[in-house]
Formats: sequence, C-alpha cells, structure tokens
Amino acid sequence: MSEKILVFDSTLRDGAQAEGISFSVEDKIRVVETLDKMGIDYIEAGNPGSNPKDIEFFNRIKGIHLNHAKLVAFGSTRRGGIAVEDDANLKAILETETPGVAIFGKSWTFHITDIIKTTLAENLKMIEETMAYLKAQGKDVTFDAEHFFDGYKNDPAYAIEALLAAQEGGADCLALCDTNGGTLPYEIQEIVTTVRQKMRIPLGIHCHNDSGLAVANSLMAVHAGARQVQGTFLGYGERCGNANLATIIPNLQLKMGFHCLADAELQKLTSSAIRIAEISNYALTGREPFVGKSAFAHKGGMHIDAVMKNPASFEHVSPEAVGNERRILMSEVSGRSTIIQLINEVDPSLTKKSDETTRVMDRIKELEYQGYQFEGAESSVKLLIRKELGLHKPFFTLEDFKTIGEQTHTKEALSSSAVVKINVDGQSEINAAEGDGPVNALDKALRKALEVFYPKISEVRLTDFKVRVIDSKSATASKVRVLIESSDGIDIWTNVGVSTDIIEASLIALIDSIEYKLLSDEERENK
Amino acid sequence: MSEKILVFDSTLRDGAQAEGISFSVEDKIRVVETLDKMGIDYIEAGNPGSNPKDIEFFNRIKGIHLNHAKLVAFGSTRRGGIAVEDDANLKAILETETPGVAIFGKSWTFHITDIIKTTLAENLKMIEETMAYLKAQGKDVTFDAEHFFDGYKNDPAYAIEALLAAQEGGADCLALCDTNGGTLPYEIQEIVTTVRQKMRIPLGIHCHNDSGLAVANSLMAVHAGARQVQGTFLGYGERCGNANLATIIPNLQLKMGFHCLADAELQKLTSSAIRIAEISNYALTGREPFVGKSAFAHKGGMHIDAVMKNPASFEHVSPEAVGNERRILMSEVSGRSTIIQLINEVDPSLTKKSDETTRVMDRIKELEYQGYQFEGAESSVKLLIRKELGLHKPFFTLEDFKTIGEQTHTKEALSSSAVVKINVDGQSEINAAEGDGPVNALDKALRKALEVFYPKISEVRLTDFKVRVIDSKSATASKVRVLIESSDGIDIWTNVGVSTDIIEASLIALIDSIEYKLLSDEERENK
Repeated sequence: MSEKILVFDSTLRDGAQAEGISFSVEDKIRVVETLDKMGIDYIEAGNPGSNPKDIEFFNRIKGIHLNHAKLVAFGSTRRGGIAVEDDANLKAILETETPGVAIFGKSWTFHITDIIKTTLAENLKMIEETMAYLKAQGKDVTFDAEHFFDGYKNDPAYAIEALLAAQEGGADCLALCDTNGGTLPYEIQEIVTTVRQKMRIPLGIHCHNDSGLAVANSLMAVHAGARQVQGTFLGYGERCGNANLATIIPNLQLKMGFHCLADAELQKLTSSAIRIAEISNYALTGREPFVGKSAFAHKGGMHIDAVMKNPASFEHVSPEAVGNERRILMSEVSGRSTIIQLINEVDPSLTKKSDETTRVMDRIKELEYQGYQFEGAESSVKLLIRKELGLHKPFFTLEDFKTIGEQTHTKEALSSSAVVKINVDGQSEINAAEGDGPVNALDKALRKALEVFYPKISEVRLTDFKVRVIDSKSATASKVRVLIESSDGIDIWTNVGVSTDIIEASLIALIDSIEYKLLSDEERENK
Repeated sequence: MSEKILVFDSTLRDGAQAEGISFSVEDKIRVVETLDKMGIDYIEAGNPGSNPKDIEFFNRIKGIHLNHAKLVAFGSTRRGGIAVEDDANLKAILETETPGVAIFGKSWTFHITDIIKTTLAENLKMIEETMAYLKAQGKDVTFDAEHFFDGYKNDPAYAIEALLAAQEGGADCLALCDTNGGTLPYEIQEIVTTVRQKMRIPLGIHCHNDSGLAVANSLMAVHAGARQVQGTFLGYGERCGNANLATIIPNLQLKMGFHCLADAELQKLTSSAIRIAEISNYALTGREPFVGKSAFAHKGGMHIDAVMKNPASFEHVSPEAVGNERRILMSEVSGRSTIIQLINEVDPSLTKKSDETTRVMDRIKELEYQGYQFEGAESSVKLLIRKELGLHKPFFTLEDFKTIGEQTHTKEALSSSAVVKINVDGQSEINAAEGDGPVNALDKALRKALEVFYPKISEVRLTDFKVRVIDSKSATASKVRVLIESSDGIDIWTNVGVSTDIIEASLIALIDSIEYKLLSDEERENK
C-alpha cells in the first residue's frame, strides 16, 4: 500500500486571487462538488472574515453533503493585543461550521515588525492561542506558516519557534508556505528535511509559482517528508499562480509512488480539470502538463513515426492514466504521414505519393498561409479532403445574405437581423431572423431555412464559439479566426473560418459545421 | 565575477514544434535579431535536413551580421550503415555555414533497438564519427543526448558510453536531454552529479515540461554542474513545451549567482519576451513568471496594503530587475484602497468613506456583474469615475448608427458598410464608410464624422483589438468582451466594452477610447 498524501485544494480561496478569476456563489458550489467527487481531502473554500460573498457561500454550502472532502474556512491568527474570543475574523470562521480551518500566521520577522507591527513574542502567542482556541472547538486545524522559507532563510530560529508555537497550541498540520514564490527546489529540500526532524506533527507545503517552480518545490517538499500538499486546480492564484494540483497529483501518484486519489478518479483527471476551467471561465492554453489538449499531441514527423511504433518513445506516461488522449497534429513539419491517415479514411487506395495527396497538401498549405489552423478542427480537414477529391456534393449553397445592425436615438437597444437565401437541389428558400448580434442572427436564419429540407438540423447546438484576432496589430481591420464547436448530442465537432470580416469567418465555419453534420448523418445511415 | 552559464535558445527549432506556432522566414529573422541583441549565446534556428523552409531561412540569414550569438543548425547523427560524408542531413547542415551545430543522438537502448533499429555498437560509431566529422569542419559542436535521463535510468553504463563516444569524437558540450519531460528534479540532480564526475567536457541540459518541471530540472542541473542551458522563449515547444528561458535566466542570474546576460539586457527581459510573443503571434496568459503582466500584480486587499508598506513583503524580486512593473488590481476583494487612488487623481478631497466613493464602487460592481473586467482597462475606469462624479461632459453623442453586411451571388465579396450620426454641442454630423467587417466600418465612419470637430482624432490608431467570449456555452448568443488598445504616438490606453452583440461591445470601447483621447488632450493643454 503506497503512502497517502493529503491533498489540500485552495482553488476557491487562493485561486480566487488570480487576475481574471471571479467566482459566483453558484460557481463555488459547483467547484466544491467537483473536487469532492474527485476525492480531494481538504477544500479551502473562502475567507469569511474578509469577504461577504464567502459568508453567503458558507451559508449555502451548509445544506450540501460532501462524501469525502473536509471543507475548510481560511483566516489569520487573532489580531495583536486582543483575546481570541474577541477576534471578529475567528468568529466569522466559527460561524461557517466547517470541520476544517486553515489559519495563517507570521514566521518571517520582517513581516511582524514592519508589516503587522507587533512584537515577536506577541506573534508567537497569537499563533499558539489561536490554535488552542480552534482545537477546543473540535476543528481540524492547519497552520499556514506564511513566508516560512523567506523567514527561515532570514532567521531560522524564529521561524522554527513559530512552528513550535502552532504545534504547542495543538495544530494538526504545519504547512510551510513559499508565499512569494521565490525559493529554489534545493533550498526547499534542505529546509523541509531540517524542519521535519524538529517537529512531531505532519508538515504540509504551500507554494507559489513566481519563479516557475511551484510544482517542483511541492514535489521536493514531499520527497523531504511533507505529507500534505496545498495547491489550486490549474494553478490559479495571485501573480503567477499557485502550485498546480492537476500537475502535482499525477506526479506524486504515477511517478513518486504516493497515493492521492483513487485510480479511477485519476483516470478522469483531464475531464475534472476541464470542468473546473469551464466553471471558472478560464481559458486553457492546451499546454497544461497531463491534462492539456497538447499534452500528448505530436507534431514533428520523426516523433510521429516513433510514437506510432511505440508511444513510450515520446510519452512519459500514458494519456489514459490521466484521462487524456493522444493527438497527431497536422503541420508543414509533420508532413504527409498525418494527412494520409485522414485521406485513407475517405479513399484507402491513395498513398503518400498520389497526386490527390499532393493536391490536398497544397490546399492545406494555401489555407494555412491565409491564417487557417486545422489543429483542433479536424472536421474541417475531413470536409476539405472530400472536396479536393471531388467526393463532396454540398448539401446546400448560400445564395445571398444580408445582415443589418441598427440603433437609433428613438430606440435604445441595438437591433440585429439577418436575411439568408439558400438553394437545395435547385430549390430556393429565403428566411430571416433577429438575434444577439449579426452572427447569431445569421446562424438562426440559416437554420430556419435549412430545416425545411433537413429537419435533423434542429438537433444541432453550437456549444462553443471562439474568436481569435490573428494579426491584432492592424486592429479592427485584422483577420479573425473563428472556431465553432457544435454538438448533436452524439458527436462533437469543430470547424474553422478565417476572414478579415468576423461575419464572413463565422459563416464559413457555420456552413462547414452544418455540412459536416449532414455528411455524418448520411454516413451513419449508409452503414 | 560570477560564473558564466551559456544560454542556448531553441525557440526557432524545438519551439517551432509547439501546437499553434508557425514561423515564417521573416519571423525567424526577427527572432534571431531579438535574441542576438539580448546577448543569447547560441541560437538554434532550424533543422535544414528535414525542412525546406529552414533551408530558405539559413540562406537568407547568411547576409545578416550577428553581434554576439552563434547561429546553430540542428540535425541528427549520421544514419546507420553509411559514411558520414554521404549523409544528406549532415550535408544540409554544412551548407548552412553556421558556426555552431547541435547533433542529437541516441542514448536510450530502447530507442536504438526498437525505433531506429540499429545495433548499440553502430549507434556509438554514429555518434563518434559524426562529432569528429563536424569538428574537422571547424564547428562548435553540441551533442544532444536525446532521452538521456530515461536511457540512464534504464541502462546507465550504455548512456555513459554514448556520452563518452561524443566526447571522444571531439564534441564541445554534452547536452543531457529529458526529451519526454518525465524526470523528477531530485533525479536530475543525482544523475547530473554522477555524470559530471565522469566527463571532462562541459555538460548542458535540455528539458521538456511534460511534468511541469522543465525550469526546476534545468536549475537543478546547473546546481549539479551543467554549464549550458537549452530552452525556448516563453517555453514554446511540442506537447507541454520546453524549458522557459525567460524564467530560467532571471532565476540563474538574480538568485543563483550565475551570469547569463548583461544586467542592462536582463532589465529589458519583459519587453524582449513580449516582442518574441508578438512575432510568434503567441497569446501570453499574463501569468508568466518574471515577464507576465500579472507577475507583479496584487489583488488581495491585505497584500496590497503590505506591498504599499514594503514591496519585498509580497515580491520575490523587484519588477525593475526584469523590466516588468507592479500593478494594483481592482476587484471585489481588493476593495476601496485601490479605487480611492484613482478617485484621488480626479478629486483629492474624497476619502474611502465618501458617498462618491461608494457610488463609484457600486457602479463598478454592477458592471463587473454584467461581465466587465477593468483589470488592464484603467482608462475606462478613469472615465467611469469622472462620469460618476459628474465631472465628465461627453465630447460627443452618438445619435444613430447602422451597419450593413451584404453578399449576393452576383457579387463574390462580402461588403460591409456603416452609417453614423453624431452630435457635438447641438450640431449633427452624418458620415459613412466601408470597411473590413462591421466594426472596422463603424470605426472609420465615426472617426470621419468626429474629425470635423476634433482634427486631432486623426492621430489615433487602434493598436490592438481583443475579443473574448465571456460565456461561451451559449455560443453565438454569448456575451462578448472587447478590449481596444489605442495609441496617439505619445500614450497607449485600453478600453473595454461588453454586450451580447460584438458590434455594440466594440462601439462602447471605441467611444470610450475617443473620449479618453479628447480628455487627455484637454488635460495636457490645461497644464
């Protein structure tokens, strides 16, 4: 049985400090449910003493049963010169009724004398008394030794005294914080090893990523004996973020031989991480270790050949172990071996050297030059191949369209409408719709006209719509790339359009999306 | 004098393997110039044997003088069973005439037997002969021991033999590669320490970020004796990317006491990194250590108070050391201390407790609820404050506007046009323009109408235009947030607009951008 590492998630507390992140109470509840399902041990969900929204959240969450996780309220040691019973922040924490609490206190003398301006002796009392008070209320108490590593490097004796005060007060765990994110991995290893020998209760680690080292520092601390790891999902956090639990957990469990989550949950890590990103409206870069869309994506020609022979040649773990998947990307560098796979789905007789393959490659290069990127838009490539091979008969043609956006001082709101005229097998159909903006109006009008011929179009929903300005330096006259993700409840597919005009780019992607749906239906029926 | 670490940049070679990155020849030349100016020691710029675009690049770059950097062409050891003189890839490398070459070879037995399918003995010959051949041509040769750490863990004796073969052949540096990115920091330290003792020539380190550890692993290797560090700017690279030199360099120089770049160049690191991101059309997340927009951004109320007292309280290095800057962010959590600073610029008599401050706060909260984010759009906040305090008299009002997008089957191209009617001091002006899309047409029409009253409007250019879909789950009917960056050659400012309609959102930001320009001109004149 491998040794357990307690996972302490602070996505909703320290993660909420990230620039661009703002959780509603509803969002927070959904994140708690996701983390609990995953098997996270502690969920630090807010700072009730400093934030009225967090108080509302803690009231709401009281009625919700968690299966595994302990909910944690966060706050600081009592203020200097007052009794613990009189501290408003501690009162707010107790009112949350969470089983766990995390209390930060100072261990760097500079912060005590220059920032909170109290004495070193009083600070130790603040720590010990706060721990004792919360333990007497039956709480599971983590002491967050803020700026511990900076404090230790400056005055090791006092930093240790601060930890001893927390231990003396009855804390269950001493989390050593690299609050400013400036400590190096070998320093972490050395300091944690030393501290470990002086304490009888477990140590935790809490790292920030200002030096790009938060994950490594967390792993080094566990390697040196820490048994609780604090972090946030996807590394959300102030400045450069916190230690990313979606990276730490698979490293600990798949490589270092520790136990964090049930294997079945680790095998769903990618979808759990994506869910949290969606709730937070956080744009993933795709480069996230283990869970990113690119994490197991192969682009170089030599690498693709090797991965086909044996995935271990260029993959450090299997994508399945974390619920991710392998992707083979198209690009000028990856060359024909990628394209030929897609071409062979349509016509198995063609080879890398066929004229048809050259024609498809040339067309892709030409579109790439115009600003297209087909990575992630494989359904647009499939259509392109069928068109180049002369195998695609369009299901409809767009004859005319017109969009109108209008606002007059007699009418407050902007009105957007669109008229489209399509043709199916020589038969024209015109229809119109109003919408939220010209693209939405066009989308609606197009579907209305098409449903006359293809009733199944009504099954399709657009599930995502991304706009990327390609050359933002020429500002509003830049080219834009629009990616549209669609779903019919069975399948999900993505299409791409590029133009200097956002409406035209959207329309290209919309038309491809509908053509792809109709083609897939036809193929399903023919099977 | 601190010890020199040679910085080996592979942005244009390994970085070009990143999903979403595609450099033109022109882009590559601009990146080389940026890296050379910065003082990077080696610039690995392409793989002439596998990529015709890279051959074109190496021909173009021959005419360009570099001040400091050695240009490096990349390729593999000769193929099995042929003479070095007959190897087409090596020929292509020599034709580049670069002073440096980097040659990768195998050191993991699994790759030799299962992927390239040759014998272990022949592989050692391939390494040694390739080194000797290139040294005889006077090249500065780096041997990239591909998959070194995986190879070493599997068969340390053979991995060492591969390095010894390269040393015997005359290589100048042995770069140990964690090609799959799966090695842990303490393993790197241990292995590099051991290898160091067995080699007489310098070691280098080349890490990938699949475990989120590339930066840490590079630092651990230098700590253990490596003296050349390979990486890419901003960590571009296949899958999860390569080691990020923009993070490694300041860690080595500001914290570990090594020398990489001239201090003056380190102090421009942020702008150099941004320049490379712009050339690559790579969207920065802002969370990049040292150089990201959020790297020194403070959001939590307590943190802001502490940073005001002493920046060292929550900053591990000073932003100036890397050419970045401190930012104080507005948010529900940061509260009044941030807003009051901006309010006091307009009216120094107001305090945190003034009714006016409450009104401004309420208005900001209301807009944030609607989807606005003012982080990064401080000029929109300044206007908002003036409006709420009743101090802003708009320079113009927009009375009516209309946009038309039209495409008919008789006319191939889409035509977008806009009509606007504005009013300045009771006097109306109507004008129209065609443009690339409705927003561009509106922008042009609005400027044409306004220039009649305010000729200085002609100085303003839009320098950036960003569209973010806020709630992408409702797809084309989602809300969009538009950020517009403008410049008049003296100042740069950013404005934000939110709406379900992209045209309206753009228009809100455009109007604010123009109002801000006219207000700034007025303030400059009154000074």
